[in-house]
Amino acid sequence: MNKLGVGVVGVGEMGKRHAENLARLIPTARLVAVADANLERARSVAHELEIEHAHDSTEALVARHDVQAVVIATPAKFHTSAIQVAAAAGKDIFCEKPLALTLEEADAAVGAVTKAGVRLQLGFMRRYDPAYAQAKKTIEAGEIGEPIIFKSIGRDVEAPPLSYFESGWSGTLFHDSSVHEFDLARWLMNDEIMEVHTFAAARALPQLTRLGLFDAGVVNLRFARGAIGNVESFLDARYGYDVRTEIVGTRGTIRVGSLHNTPLQVLTQPGSRHDISNHFLVRFRDAYVGEMRDFVETILSDRPPRVTAQDGRQALAVVLAAVRSFEESRPILLQAPAP
Amino acid sequence: MNKLGVGVVGVGEMGKRHAENLARLIPTARLVAVADANLERARSVAHELEIEHAHDSTEALVARHDVQAVVIATPAKFHTSAIQVAAAAGKDIFCEKPLALTLEEADAAVGAVTKAGVRLQLGFMRRYDPAYAQAKKTIEAGEIGEPIIFKSIGRDVEAPPLSYFESGWSGTLFHDSSVHEFDLARWLMNDEIMEVHTFAAARALPQLTRLGLFDAGVVNLRFARGAIGNVESFLDARYGYDVRTEIVGTRGTIRVGSLHNTPLQVLTQPGSRHDISNHFLVRFRDAYVGEMRDFVETILSDRPPRVTAQDGRQALAVVLAAVRSFEESRPILLQAPAP
Amino acid sequence: MNKLGVGVVGVGEMGKRHAENLARLIPTARLVAVADANLERARSVAHELEIEHAHDSTEALVARHDVQAVVIATPAKFHTSAIQVAAAAGKDIFCEKPLALTLEEADAAVGAVTKAGVRLQLGFMRRYDPAYAQAKKTIEAGEIGEPIIFKSIGRDVEAPPLSYFESGWSGTLFHDSSVHEFDLARWLMNDEIMEVHTFAAARALPQLTRLGLFDAGVVNLRFARGAIGNVESFLDARYGYDVRTEIVGTRGTIRVGSLHNTPLQVLTQPGSRHDISNHFLVRFRDAYVGEMRDFVETILSDRPPRVTAQDGRQALAVVLAAVRSFEESRPILLQAPAP
Amino acid sequence: MNKLGVGVVGVGEMGKRHAENLARLIPTARLVAVADANLERARSVAHELEIEHAHDSTEALVARHDVQAVVIATPAKFHTSAIQVAAAAGKDIFCEKPLALTLEEADAAVGAVTKAGVRLQLGFMRRYDPAYAQAKKTIEAGEIGEPIIFKSIGRDVEAPPLSYFESGWSGTLFHDSSVHEFDLARWLMNDEIMEVHTFAAARALPQLTRLGLFDAGVVNLRFARGAIGNVESFLDARYGYDVRTEIVGTRGTIRVGSLHNTPLQVLTQPGSRHDISNHFLVRFRDAYVGEMRDFVETILSDRPPRVTAQDGRQALAVVLAAVRSFEESRPILLQAPAP
Repeated sequence: MNKLGVGVVGVGEMGKRHAENLARLIPTARLVAVADANLERARSVAHELEIEHAHDSTEALVARHDVQAVVIATPAKFHTSAIQVAAAAGKDIFCEKPLALTLEEADAAVGAVTKAGVRLQLGFMRRYDPAYAQAKKTIEAGEIGEPIIFKSIGRDVEAPPLSYFESGWSGTLFHDSSVHEFDLARWLMNDEIMEVHTFAAARALPQLTRLGLFDAGVVNLRFARGAIGNVESFLDARYGYDVRTEIVGTRGTIRVGSLHNTPLQVLTQPGSRHDISNHFLVRFRDAYVGEMRDFVETILSDRPPRVTAQDGRQALAVVLAAVRSFEESRPILLQAPAP
Repeated sequence: MNKLGVGVVGVGEMGKRHAENLARLIPTARLVAVADANLERARSVAHELEIEHAHDSTEALVARHDVQAVVIATPAKFHTSAIQVAAAAGKDIFCEKPLALTLEEADAAVGAVTKAGVRLQLGFMRRYDPAYAQAKKTIEAGEIGEPIIFKSIGRDVEAPPLSYFESGWSGTLFHDSSVHEFDLARWLMNDEIMEVHTFAAARALPQLTRLGLFDAGVVNLRFARGAIGNVESFLDARYGYDVRTEIVGTRGTIRVGSLHNTPLQVLTQPGSRHDISNHFLVRFRDAYVGEMRDFVETILSDRPPRVTAQDGRQALAVVLAAVRSFEESRPILLQAPAP
Repeated sequence: MNKLGVGVVGVGEMGKRHAENLARLIPTARLVAVADANLERARSVAHELEIEHAHDSTEALVARHDVQAVVIATPAKFHTSAIQVAAAAGKDIFCEKPLALTLEEADAAVGAVTKAGVRLQLGFMRRYDPAYAQAKKTIEAGEIGEPIIFKSIGRDVEAPPLSYFESGWSGTLFHDSSVHEFDLARWLMNDEIMEVHTFAAARALPQLTRLGLFDAGVVNLRFARGAIGNVESFLDARYGYDVRTEIVGTRGTIRVGSLHNTPLQVLTQPGSRHDISNHFLVRFRDAYVGEMRDFVETILSDRPPRVTAQDGRQALAVVLAAVRSFEESRPILLQAPAP
Repeated sequence: MNKLGVGVVGVGEMGKRHAENLARLIPTARLVAVADANLERARSVAHELEIEHAHDSTEALVARHDVQAVVIATPAKFHTSAIQVAAAAGKDIFCEKPLALTLEEADAAVGAVTKAGVRLQLGFMRRYDPAYAQAKKTIEAGEIGEPIIFKSIGRDVEAPPLSYFESGWSGTLFHDSSVHEFDLARWLMNDEIMEVHTFAAARALPQLTRLGLFDAGVVNLRFARGAIGNVESFLDARYGYDVRTEIVGTRGTIRVGSLHNTPLQVLTQPGSRHDISNHFLVRFRDAYVGEMRDFVETILSDRPPRVTAQDGRQALAVVLAAVRSFEESRPILLQAPAP
């Protein structure tokens, strides 16, 4: 079998999962090397996954001839430079969300990829979740008529420590979490978001206020063809990891999302109790495998990626407009994407 | 038993249900008379409920000495004048939502009630729904910590005919439907809404556009103590009557709402199928009885109403701000209510 | 309106509910009188329901000319004699389940009714529950193909005191509770039960053992046309009142039953929690109104009852076979019902 | 890393999955070889899993020095001989359920394992399902009090062809499917089944009747300590693969099982629709990995298996008693297992 040699840059929680999926679950790929600014971490992952090569920089990893494609899972702040290095080395690229923290970075990344003529697939894994994929098909089949309202909730189980935000490596709640909802909105509605309005608050982690940040936000959406919507994000829900989406159409509605983790229910005098999914790697386990498998197949079959750098740029544009709406206390119009 | 003599003004679908509940399910009340601008309708309801007196005006009904309290269920446009007439006659009043279509009318209504020294209870029946009532208690008991986010959806099963809106009798979607969500927001969050932002659309009933109206809306909320929220309303969901609310707190979340109507599930090769509640009189059957029973007990025990004219006025103020936000394409600040 | 005069005999929890439904929710009926061996109880219910006549015996109640129909809700041990008295007086009869405690009594009751030429409707109210009624229609429409397996669970929330069983007034768990499942089995499968096998135990109320009784039972069923099934009954489930039924067919399956009481869910760190229905008068509220309305309409429109004395007798025959299977530790064949 | 060399015998659907799990998801194991009476199939699986060795017999596979443990996933009829061959070669054994088709075979298998001093773990994978494992813990923690009633349903989505049964390779529905329920009963109730009673039918596949077989069965259970229960099995449910279990205790009840496959719901005018799990390899995906991981760890850490040959023999004894109850139309007592 002609296997695709892949390297993973950044092997924190997310990058390690990508590396595992490549090593174990995608027979058409060969995990060749991992890299991490923390070389010990890279070595530990390499050892666990039984591969030989651990590096401490993107540069070292992309210099390898046996690496044909690179998965970038560093903190968001470093995405652009990693993309530039990998593109310059002629490697196809999978990049985690968000594409970048600013539009300038995003445009630089898109430019580097275009110039090098390599592929870039963005890590909007929800598109590969069986339920979301079926939702997309159901909408396209016309079963709910014309979509009118888009709603989505993304609640994380527990806020990261304040230092996570102080580093500035991951941007705001909207960069980190809501970007998934904004991509779903564009993809499921098959439309562009033209205007947003944000209310946001820092109530679970009040210290965020002095950083100009927030832990909860509601973002009103207006789409180009007239549909409307709202995205809610919260990073400290405590009861679980809860992602739910609804698309209301002229003839019906689709809901995606469930609070059930295992199919166990305990019935006692206070009532019924069941557990709730509590981690994105659990809820979207299959989606992460699916997106990586598609990335590998995209390259092996020499076709354009399904989730593009442009998708990453547009979702980021919504993120930045939502942040600005919060900062300026007014709705923000977005520019139509270049055709 | 000393029964409270009650008359019902306006016996369309809603008023007739109040009349039935008074006649059959509230032993401490006696339904004495009904009135309707359509006298035939008043007579038909009187006959069905086996009472003797049907009138064609509020004036005629409140002139009766055996009527101590009046239930007003006319179109919203006529609430204020009915309240003025009933108050002037010294009758205690139950008035359906919204209190009025404009703040001027609302203030006139409140003034009439205050001047006459009668009670006015507003028809926010959801506060009497067992699930919402339990939600309120659960919040007050601190089980979800401090409330941070308020979300509510109100979708009606089928849009009324265009003439319903052309008449101008019921105001906008926000007057007619979202007003329930705004009252829930104030009540469950125990806070005031200070700012709103609206996107709205007319997609199911596009003809509403030329009336300056809409069939779908999302309204972002900012509360006085810093919480945020969003209300979605839609009047043509087709699949059912769907009311759902979530309150996210620092330690947990409460959800109210269910799509199940009867506990029947049919499992066949396409999957599982169940029916969905399709009418507000079905979903809130007990709540309508509960609010009317409380109204009667309030008067018989000579205490102030639990849901006040002021509650009606504040919810209306949010409605009007949400409409204005739509019309002016900007967020609208509300004035703090008079202490 | 020509209203049917009805009297209720036995106004414990169940009889009182029938009396309330007749007085308040069935406009075509007039509750004329109630009777109870405990005259104080009869007077109290009469007062609460604002009727004039309270009696201390079936005889006194059926002697009234303004009573055309009688609802019998005494303990099961007294059903037969009450039926005989009411039939002899020429009154149409609604009788609570079970029809009787023994087949001899049941045959005497059927004989009395036949001889007098009056109607008898049996109180299998589940047939009037919207979900069960829809299940029946769905089966008859062929949607699940040919029914193959019948399953039903009936769990009560809390065992009555031992004295309830010591009195001998209500028979066994199978007389009191499973009789509903056996009637559902006959009705939904449109077939007769030909053989049963029982295992039973007294684990929640171990003192039942010395009475030869049990608090939990599983009864295997074999139907005349070859289908099979199982009924489980338990009287001390603690978590709630839980009635669930499944009919498995060659093309699909129907489930009836839900553990949700109010549509409220509390999500906190241990997981999701919701309350559970905890009383038969709550779960089957509409069914009780429905069966009583049908009883009144049956008489007013002069047609035969939908749930007959013969249905009562056959369900009782299954009950007695199930008890005998427990006592004799072997399967018991039933006789085919007389054509 | 010291990896355990494992060979898989029988690489149909089940054996192939075990081989995949060993090759990809259990880093402490090394899949060395596969064997199948159909050598082409063995070669195809070896190729797909990128291993070198494919054999056409158990004998050839166990002759390998690099194979330390053997997974047996042949048809049940061949389990005993495969166990004997593997045990004689000194290999530790994982054997799919049922252990054998007859008690004589089972005793021969147990004897061979005991004599050779090797381990045998039986493939009751449900014990490794997160929901069932949590159910066991919840019962052991006393949360539902003393277990009183055990109920379990196992419905497969579509009957295999008649030839599957004509071959005699897999025994009856009870050998093939109900054996899982009987093992759950013993394990979750922590008790032995002492008596069974069966009704069974061949309604979906009527041709089974002439083979003395059946496609649906209900089996009443009596446990040694007095608890009772019922197991239902059906092999042609059409709507999905549906496994559900309830344990009713003196203080609460546990339910395991869900009909939801993906968290997607489509709401349209006929109601709500969702899809249903339709394959055991989907529903129990994690359980299959879990049991195999435990098998490997058991050997590497030199401890006795958690699911033993004796567990396999006892579940088979219940299977055979249930079959005999069907054949002889009477309840069957089981012998207490040897201490």
